[in-house]
Amino acid sequence: MSTLVLLRHGESLWNQQNRFTGWEDVDLAPEGEQEARHAGEMFVHAGLLPDVVHTSLLKRAIRTADLSLAAAGRHWIPVRRSWRLNERHYGDLQGRDKAETLARFGEEQFTIWRRSFDTPPPAVSRDSPYHPANDPRYAALAPEQLPATEALSNVLERMLPYWYDSIVPDLRAGHVTLVAAHGNSLRALVMHLQGLTAADVVTLNIPTGIALRFELDESLRPTSSAYLDPEAASVAAAKVASQGKR
Amino acid sequence: MSTLVLLRHGESLWNQQNRFTGWEDVDLAPEGEQEARHAGEMFVHAGLLPDVVHTSLLKRAIRTADLSLAAAGRHWIPVRRSWRLNERHYGDLQGRDKAETLARFGEEQFTIWRRSFDTPPPAVSRDSPYHPANDPRYAALAPEQLPATEALSNVLERMLPYWYDSIVPDLRAGHVTLVAAHGNSLRALVMHLQGLTAADVVTLNIPTGIALRFELDESLRPTSSAYLDPEAASVAAAKVASQGKR
Repeated sequence: MSTLVLLRHGESLWNQQNRFTGWEDVDLAPEGEQEARHAGEMFVHAGLLPDVVHTSLLKRAIRTADLSLAAAGRHWIPVRRSWRLNERHYGDLQGRDKAETLARFGEEQFTIWRRSFDTPPPAVSRDSPYHPANDPRYAALAPEQLPATEALSNVLERMLPYWYDSIVPDLRAGHVTLVAAHGNSLRALVMHLQGLTAADVVTLNIPTGIALRFELDESLRPTSSAYLDPEAASVAAAKVASQGKR
Repeated sequence: MSTLVLLRHGESLWNQQNRFTGWEDVDLAPEGEQEARHAGEMFVHAGLLPDVVHTSLLKRAIRTADLSLAAAGRHWIPVRRSWRLNERHYGDLQGRDKAETLARFGEEQFTIWRRSFDTPPPAVSRDSPYHPANDPRYAALAPEQLPATEALSNVLERMLPYWYDSIVPDLRAGHVTLVAAHGNSLRALVMHLQGLTAADVVTLNIPTGIALRFELDESLRPTSSAYLDPEAASVAAAKVASQGKR
């Protein structure tokens, strides 16, 4: 038996502005900082103290990890980071207003881009500031690894090697393992853990700032899963589902 | 050639209260947070961008790393932590007021405890809240590794294995390597790098929040060392030297 805790970053400045964020490195909003601290208080309340934390390379996940762990007195645990836990790259939608995008392209196209399993948004060009080739944090990657856009299927594919190579060994070692990441990298992980289909995952929404705890058996299959704050989680998930609809 | 950057944490709440801190996990003062951000701005100014960071397990060093790296846009680099980079354990002096300790024990004893190479302060007992056996972050260590007090010689001895096993490989790999730690763990490291004697190190004071850059040759011997902000460093070092003398 091992314990895995998933935590989507608190609300970011672009969440508040209703803009597609993806790999853009937007900071937490003050409300998101507060959500992160509250998540840490809930760790203590649940007696669930992480032994190790994994984050993406994006500030909103890194700071959510830092603030929640500080609130739980666990700021000193080992940290690992990987681009493989990053949010889905939203291609040419990055930076765009969700409501404007909805109005411009219509609800059907908008929903496909947001929720289709394997249809990515239009790609950004290699010289766009939104292309990861122009960001020093990805300089060590091979060019063909750098996404210009991603569907959830691409996120699943690039996230899984990190799950197997880095997170699973921590779980096997008996560590309570925290993964602080993003809506879509965590949806991909939950899809894998729970064996969801592409159809199932459409309606899966992960709220910001509320930890989701999995108990896993010897085969790393979930024997239970629960939000640390179930009421807040259902309110927040409904909010995520309605994004774009002002 | 490789580049090593040492950064002593910014001013902590107990630095401001003039109390011995040691392994007690005291947070940064607001001024210390500002020093850390300024250190990050100086990284950018000097074109010195860390590729990897090593910290102690203490909040004031962890947050100094986080705040400085965020200010330099390098919050996403790999992080490693070790108790071997912790401040010297000040034994039974931890928590005590420096001026009161000076008045009570006299200048000679006070200076020996603060600056002697191999005379530790009186030890704390195993059931003291200041004994690391009572802190979960050290639960994985063997009991004989847990200090009840330390002289600088003990710090040097427990720090060096981490230098060789964890920091040197990063330097060998060509990474600009940041070590965010403490007055005495950094004094021990500088002593080692510069081949200082126990007599030399008495007068070595490392200021808070001002990065010290070393260029190292193939044998990991310094070919140069310089504070990123030399004027501020000499003012600050004088301040450290006068501690206890109100």
